[in-house]
Amino acid sequence: MSPGQPVNDLFLLASANMGQSRNGPYWNVTFQDATGTIDGKIWSPKSQEYPTLETGSLCHVQGYVENYRDKNQLKVDHLEFRDLADGAVDLADFLPTSSVPPQDLMEELEDLVTAHMKHKPWKTLCRKVLGDEEVRSRLMTAPGAKTVHHAYVGGLLEHTLQVARVCMALCDVYPDLDRQTLLAGAIFHDLGKAWELSGGAANDYTDEGRLLGHIELGQEKLTPFLNRCKSLDKGLKLHLKHLLASHHGEHDFGSPVRPKTPEAFILHFADNMDAKLNIIDQAFEEMDKTGQEWSPYMRFLERNVYRAPATPDKSKKQNDKPENQCLLPLKA
Amino acid sequence: MSPGQPVNDLFLLASANMGQSRNGPYWNVTFQDATGTIDGKIWSPKSQEYPTLETGSLCHVQGYVENYRDKNQLKVDHLEFRDLADGAVDLADFLPTSSVPPQDLMEELEDLVTAHMKHKPWKTLCRKVLGDEEVRSRLMTAPGAKTVHHAYVGGLLEHTLQVARVCMALCDVYPDLDRQTLLAGAIFHDLGKAWELSGGAANDYTDEGRLLGHIELGQEKLTPFLNRCKSLDKGLKLHLKHLLASHHGEHDFGSPVRPKTPEAFILHFADNMDAKLNIIDQAFEEMDKTGQEWSPYMRFLERNVYRAPATPDKSKKQNDKPENQCLLPLKA
Amino acid sequence: MSPGQPVNDLFLLASANMGQSRNGPYWNVTFQDATGTIDGKIWSPKSQEYPTLETGSLCHVQGYVENYRDKNQLKVDHLEFRDLADGAVDLADFLPTSSVPPQDLMEELEDLVTAHMKHKPWKTLCRKVLGDEEVRSRLMTAPGAKTVHHAYVGGLLEHTLQVARVCMALCDVYPDLDRQTLLAGAIFHDLGKAWELSGGAANDYTDEGRLLGHIELGQEKLTPFLNRCKSLDKGLKLHLKHLLASHHGEHDFGSPVRPKTPEAFILHFADNMDAKLNIIDQAFEEMDKTGQEWSPYMRFLERNVYRAPATPDKSKKQNDKPENQCLLPLKA
Amino acid sequence: MSPGQPVNDLFLLASANMGQSRNGPYWNVTFQDATGTIDGKIWSPKSQEYPTLETGSLCHVQGYVENYRDKNQLKVDHLEFRDLADGAVDLADFLPTSSVPPQDLMEELEDLVTAHMKHKPWKTLCRKVLGDEEVRSRLMTAPGAKTVHHAYVGGLLEHTLQVARVCMALCDVYPDLDRQTLLAGAIFHDLGKAWELSGGAANDYTDEGRLLGHIELGQEKLTPFLNRCKSLDKGLKLHLKHLLASHHGEHDFGSPVRPKTPEAFILHFADNMDAKLNIIDQAFEEMDKTGQEWSPYMRFLERNVYRAPATPDKSKKQNDKPENQCLLPLKA
Amino acid sequence: MSPGQPVNDLFLLASANMGQSRNGPYWNVTFQDATGTIDGKIWSPKSQEYPTLETGSLCHVQGYVENYRDKNQLKVDHLEFRDLADGAVDLADFLPTSSVPPQDLMEELEDLVTAHMKHKPWKTLCRKVLGDEEVRSRLMTAPGAKTVHHAYVGGLLEHTLQVARVCMALCDVYPDLDRQTLLAGAIFHDLGKAWELSGGAANDYTDEGRLLGHIELGQEKLTPFLNRCKSLDKGLKLHLKHLLASHHGEHDFGSPVRPKTPEAFILHFADNMDAKLNIIDQAFEEMDKTGQEWSPYMRFLERNVYRAPATPDKSKKQNDKPENQCLLPLKA
Amino acid sequence: MSPGQPVNDLFLLASANMGQSRNGPYWNVTFQDATGTIDGKIWSPKSQEYPTLETGSLCHVQGYVENYRDKNQLKVDHLEFRDLADGAVDLADFLPTSSVPPQDLMEELEDLVTAHMKHKPWKTLCRKVLGDEEVRSRLMTAPGAKTVHHAYVGGLLEHTLQVARVCMALCDVYPDLDRQTLLAGAIFHDLGKAWELSGGAANDYTDEGRLLGHIELGQEKLTPFLNRCKSLDKGLKLHLKHLLASHHGEHDFGSPVRPKTPEAFILHFADNMDAKLNIIDQAFEEMDKTGQEWSPYMRFLERNVYRAPATPDKSKKQNDKPENQCLLPLKA
Repeated sequence: MSPGQPVNDLFLLASANMGQSRNGPYWNVTFQDATGTIDGKIWSPKSQEYPTLETGSLCHVQGYVENYRDKNQLKVDHLEFRDLADGAVDLADFLPTSSVPPQDLMEELEDLVTAHMKHKPWKTLCRKVLGDEEVRSRLMTAPGAKTVHHAYVGGLLEHTLQVARVCMALCDVYPDLDRQTLLAGAIFHDLGKAWELSGGAANDYTDEGRLLGHIELGQEKLTPFLNRCKSLDKGLKLHLKHLLASHHGEHDFGSPVRPKTPEAFILHFADNMDAKLNIIDQAFEEMDKTGQEWSPYMRFLERNVYRAPATPDKSKKQNDKPENQCLLPLKA
Repeated sequence: MSPGQPVNDLFLLASANMGQSRNGPYWNVTFQDATGTIDGKIWSPKSQEYPTLETGSLCHVQGYVENYRDKNQLKVDHLEFRDLADGAVDLADFLPTSSVPPQDLMEELEDLVTAHMKHKPWKTLCRKVLGDEEVRSRLMTAPGAKTVHHAYVGGLLEHTLQVARVCMALCDVYPDLDRQTLLAGAIFHDLGKAWELSGGAANDYTDEGRLLGHIELGQEKLTPFLNRCKSLDKGLKLHLKHLLASHHGEHDFGSPVRPKTPEAFILHFADNMDAKLNIIDQAFEEMDKTGQEWSPYMRFLERNVYRAPATPDKSKKQNDKPENQCLLPLKA
Repeated sequence: MSPGQPVNDLFLLASANMGQSRNGPYWNVTFQDATGTIDGKIWSPKSQEYPTLETGSLCHVQGYVENYRDKNQLKVDHLEFRDLADGAVDLADFLPTSSVPPQDLMEELEDLVTAHMKHKPWKTLCRKVLGDEEVRSRLMTAPGAKTVHHAYVGGLLEHTLQVARVCMALCDVYPDLDRQTLLAGAIFHDLGKAWELSGGAANDYTDEGRLLGHIELGQEKLTPFLNRCKSLDKGLKLHLKHLLASHHGEHDFGSPVRPKTPEAFILHFADNMDAKLNIIDQAFEEMDKTGQEWSPYMRFLERNVYRAPATPDKSKKQNDKPENQCLLPLKA
Repeated sequence: MSPGQPVNDLFLLASANMGQSRNGPYWNVTFQDATGTIDGKIWSPKSQEYPTLETGSLCHVQGYVENYRDKNQLKVDHLEFRDLADGAVDLADFLPTSSVPPQDLMEELEDLVTAHMKHKPWKTLCRKVLGDEEVRSRLMTAPGAKTVHHAYVGGLLEHTLQVARVCMALCDVYPDLDRQTLLAGAIFHDLGKAWELSGGAANDYTDEGRLLGHIELGQEKLTPFLNRCKSLDKGLKLHLKHLLASHHGEHDFGSPVRPKTPEAFILHFADNMDAKLNIIDQAFEEMDKTGQEWSPYMRFLERNVYRAPATPDKSKKQNDKPENQCLLPLKA
Repeated sequence: MSPGQPVNDLFLLASANMGQSRNGPYWNVTFQDATGTIDGKIWSPKSQEYPTLETGSLCHVQGYVENYRDKNQLKVDHLEFRDLADGAVDLADFLPTSSVPPQDLMEELEDLVTAHMKHKPWKTLCRKVLGDEEVRSRLMTAPGAKTVHHAYVGGLLEHTLQVARVCMALCDVYPDLDRQTLLAGAIFHDLGKAWELSGGAANDYTDEGRLLGHIELGQEKLTPFLNRCKSLDKGLKLHLKHLLASHHGEHDFGSPVRPKTPEAFILHFADNMDAKLNIIDQAFEEMDKTGQEWSPYMRFLERNVYRAPATPDKSKKQNDKPENQCLLPLKA
Repeated sequence: MSPGQPVNDLFLLASANMGQSRNGPYWNVTFQDATGTIDGKIWSPKSQEYPTLETGSLCHVQGYVENYRDKNQLKVDHLEFRDLADGAVDLADFLPTSSVPPQDLMEELEDLVTAHMKHKPWKTLCRKVLGDEEVRSRLMTAPGAKTVHHAYVGGLLEHTLQVARVCMALCDVYPDLDRQTLLAGAIFHDLGKAWELSGGAANDYTDEGRLLGHIELGQEKLTPFLNRCKSLDKGLKLHLKHLLASHHGEHDFGSPVRPKTPEAFILHFADNMDAKLNIIDQAFEEMDKTGQEWSPYMRFLERNVYRAPATPDKSKKQNDKPENQCLLPLKA
């Protein structure tokens, strides 16, 4: 989108609040589709047609792009709400989503279970949980975090899959690790996040998310499955619970206990590493748009990150780099 | 006990390991009864009559008291094991116990429920949990901690009762607090400790205690009761769980979430305060024996504590101070 | 106040600084009365009638309420200064004040002395200090802090009284505590704050407040009274000084020494707890206006706080909740 | 070795200091061979034959095994020094060594270079450094640390190889990483350790190790090679230096800069993880001897570690577990 | 400069970015000369004459001073670029510079070498390094830091000289210190800063500055000189390197090793002290303009600083205070 | 003293406690004179002649030196107490003392006052305080700390003098500092230590030292002098109090406020630096005895310190190094 360009399209209304200018009240709005978000304004007197605006609604927007303080914004000329109930459009089409569709991520996760779970009770447990209707539907849409990393539909699955892959790769280097318990831990370590965050257009913490945290929520959701899985050894169940409880590594990061087995150390490392690499990846994506080598200061990492010059590689075409990322520019 | 005094009594064998002197192998042993512990030696050749010594057994000991490096120890001349199964003696008689019997502490706790729980679902929940056979039997014997504070039979109940009393007293000063939710939180905040520690003669952390911690264990034990208590509002249940989860106050002290309601702040303060006062109380008890005003350095509090001179009080007789403490000298 | 409403009233001018718009210079002002504050603007050319504006003055304001960026502000049409010296108005009427009048708070504090101080030298000391003209006049108006908690006239007394009540309540639960020394400590723990903060319209730190801190200032103000109180035991005086010096609990919070007696621990807990509950109380007050369950992020507590659903209570009418708070909306 | 067993063998004298008993002066000594260490005593009057004892010497020892305070020690009857110069014995035979011989570890490292280094200047650099006579001879014997992890001959190579393997495995999961720069970083990240520690029988920090640290020493040793490698891009050299400088991850752990590229994050994780797994591995080895599930408190990890029950695996025979560890019992 | 004043002068364009107003795009610019900086605006349609504006260029500016939000800014009517290549003007004339010219600072530093370096190899080393063409030209212009302290041309030399003087003064009080090694350490402790920061108009970190830090860069630059200085004892070289490596005092502040000799402690103190005094000095300079006694909150020092009333001194005339500071008001 | 040497001399009995050996009770004693301390034993039956032993007494000891676990100890054959009251001996002769006599240190401090105090009220204040009988007598004997640094008679004066000298030297480098206020601050910064520590043979914290700390005690002792010094400006008094209150630099080190003036920063640096240099100096003294280059781990500095090779200095004779230290070997 560039200044002056007309807009005539469907968006999700992600946020709306009223302001007051000398010319009367106006609406500050944010629209969203799968490719990103754009801020907008509905100026008076147009604004006065909308006494309230309900976020999370779908609407047809007409207007054009303006530049305000070096940022594009949408001046809305006309705005009409659409009924989501008619099924003509799918809300999910308006949320940022992982580049690999959640369904495919889930299948890859299930393939890992098939490939590595030789002990039948482990395999059964994993399949029961992943196959449970509520769990599955939540995992399919859950983001990986509120804002910092994997903050998009499928983000939780994408993170879970990468953590599981890292764990399996490390089992090749350290063969003494208990590969199957570790895989179960990787798959379920962030299960509680599917209940900690509301997901959807207004991805925010739920009350139980804020009051209990996703580690406690994960234990709570997993426990009934463990109770029903009689064939799984009690010691293995306890180890799995320990992996969940300790995966943040330190009390400071909200783990009630710290890792006490090599598998728990590994899971913590894999979780931490994948979150950080995803954050850097998103920064690099932004930097690539402007050709910068240094990112702006990143609060979560407490530093600027650097895209170092790559080792020359004749065999590798830079173009076919897989798109691993969802934050495309709106309607790019 | 004083050097030279003969001993001829029943004790619990709390620990035993073999040493090697120039004169042959000997046993380092620790005996225990409800009034405390004493170290002892079984010298060679007597020692060689016992190829192994099983801790936790009851035994009849004959010998006399010696002074070794300024400490009393028991030189064992004869040692005979007793069968616990015959019911003639109760193992509990040989463990240090709270000054008020656990049964009485439990009754006082139930009285608090009766006095303050006006909302029936809260009352029902508390009674169901406290009345549950496994819970009750564990609470009756559980210590409050491994070593630092309330480390004796009934210690957990004693601590729980004081925390509940402090919370009720603070509700009088701050009437906006939700008195009943806070009481439920006080009663159950350390419930998991009854499973975190093994209690008994060798009071140590259990595997699940070390791998999950008592906060997680408490949630796990409480959840089935909450699930069965249909009449209790979902929001109150969530608040109660939050009180358990946050009662250590900071991530650093193992709380997965920090207090987010005034009741959670209060519970954390009450818990913290009672633990510290109990530690100081034990130090004062020791200091009273020797008349010192300053305690030795206390690792847990990271300081020495001081018994300040008391405000003169004619109405109060110093003698009838209630004995609030279990660590009496052995056979004092 | 709502947009469009005319205003014609007396206010205290709390702050004033000049801005520059395209239409010429204008004044950003803040007016204040006992019910709160409101920002305002004096636009050009009206603004040019006031080359300077002295804060802390009383003035009669005419104008009307506008909405600017979702906040009300006062557009000033006319502004006339009043002479404070004529005694017709009392400046105190324009400062936010504790809901219970300072005079009543002081009486309740004196009642506590009467009720608990059985040792005459303690009683004498407390009465001498509280009865001292300078101390009394400062305590009557002193705020509890610059911004965070109890930041209103009478705030220091309100905080002092609650801390004293908490300490007395805890003495009921822990009868071994030295109730009278603790009460003296509670009453004087923040005495220095009456000199650390200037109070009044521009409540800010004084030079001696910033350079010495209120703990040191408190000792300095208390010492002459202690010197004159010959009948009070030297050890009790030292204990009282220790209570003042250690009441922040940790070096990190500015205590030159950490608590070393049970009374010092208790005083620190009570002080800390009351400050935090007051902060939460103020947040709840704000949240009640908008019906929110979660507060905005609170920098001092480093978290959002939550108003949990209350336990249903038939006997308690929600309406007669005592108003414990001063931050009412302006002219509400 | 068991109490009473006679000893008649060659050892390295690892430490010796004189004590004083009632019967005259005696020597406390520690003997060492490749399988471990044993403490011993040379009692008076035998002790008086040796006015001094030079550590690091080879000696023939006759005596027998005693049990002292539950530990075996060697009572020396006769002790005769051997000349190392005659070449009949190799000192290295008396030092604990990695289970895989250093020569093989070095070859595996060179194989990784061959397999992954496609960019010729990287390959050339690695081969020049690893092929340099001083570097190679130091790497062949260097321990990985003073005491905590990999503290044996070949330990540095073993650690380096595992870190390199972990990095290569993670490049498979995160294909955007610069595999070759990362491999160079992994190979050289601890190069300075070969100069920071003296290695040998008295493995201790050197003066330059203590005064500069191994990060600075590594840069110093690598720089001349980088200067000579004209074909390697300046930006790649800078990235490699950054990998060395930042590999401890945080200032707190002695890194002058923190990781600012994804490769630097990965290298830090791999380094940290391998060190911790090696420590746990050594603890498990010790625990296996006694069948314990919990390690003693480990100061470096600040916790006890747990050997969880393994997932049952029919296909895996427990017996052919590769011996990955050097701390066998002496003469086991 | 005061509002309304016309401007017609040469400036360095320090920064420029485009904004968007209702009246079209405009340029936010910052101009700079040796006396300070001033922000400005080029409004539409004038702004549209400049599709891009290159920072670091010299330009002739016509316009006048406006007041905007209590700050002066320059409304640009005309702007014409000058060619730096013609040599008619010197860019250095437009950068803030230390009050004492860099050339004089360098001479004073060399005088210290002459006065204190009695050991010839030390003297030779210092002269070689300070006389090296690249080193000298960088030192002549290098700032002491990016923003916090000594952020002006000559700032690095000014800081280096003061640190050296402090060290020499302390050697008088502590005669056991190794004066010459300490002087060498003082002179070279921040050498790497001349490469860590780009200096000039856009004083920012270089890539190697961010990726390696100035401690590592200093070692790298110094090492070739040390290698060539054969007569200097190896132990003294190592001590000097230690002084550089440890001068930040703690790992937290980026030192890979902490001070381990008295000289290293002293150098760290002197460095820390001079940086802080320079920051306070700049704050005082600002405060003097407005007569304030308290500075605004200073993020780096994490406090406000206070100008205490001075001890009366008849002999000292306040007027001839040497101007030790460069941040004069623009064209003052 | 060497093993076998007979002893027949006067000592101070510094500590005594009873042990129990197989041969009966014995006394562990420590004797002390100005040159150091030595442990000793009074074996049974000799020990039984002394039912109690009062520490702090002077006694004549006969016996000889033994070697026990590599340390010398004194086997006491005969021990006879001396009456201190007869004035024949001076207890001070048996305490370790600063190498320069306290009287000389005090004079040098007074010389500094004369040299630098040009403002008469400052000079008067300093002379009044230093001339006060109680202050002077306490300063003459006070140690600088309990154990860590300057722990000997005159240690407080020695430290005070060095801090004052450092401050004066820094005023030469930074002429804007308020030299006279800084000197007053240096002289009185640790005044409270003369009351915080008991000094003498059993140098330990006093009750008021532990409960208030030396900063508070210093203010308390100084305040009456300040009150009496009417001619000294109120602002200068406040600055002086701030220097005392903030001289530990950080809350963490017990300062209720942190330095807010340049003089306060300087005083904190000087204090910190002199304490650390004294600790290192003592370590070097010990290391010189054995020729070691590295100290053992020093808990207070959290590191080992290193005596670097000195820059060769023909003009300086190593022999006439002034003895700046009191810890000579006993009777060396």
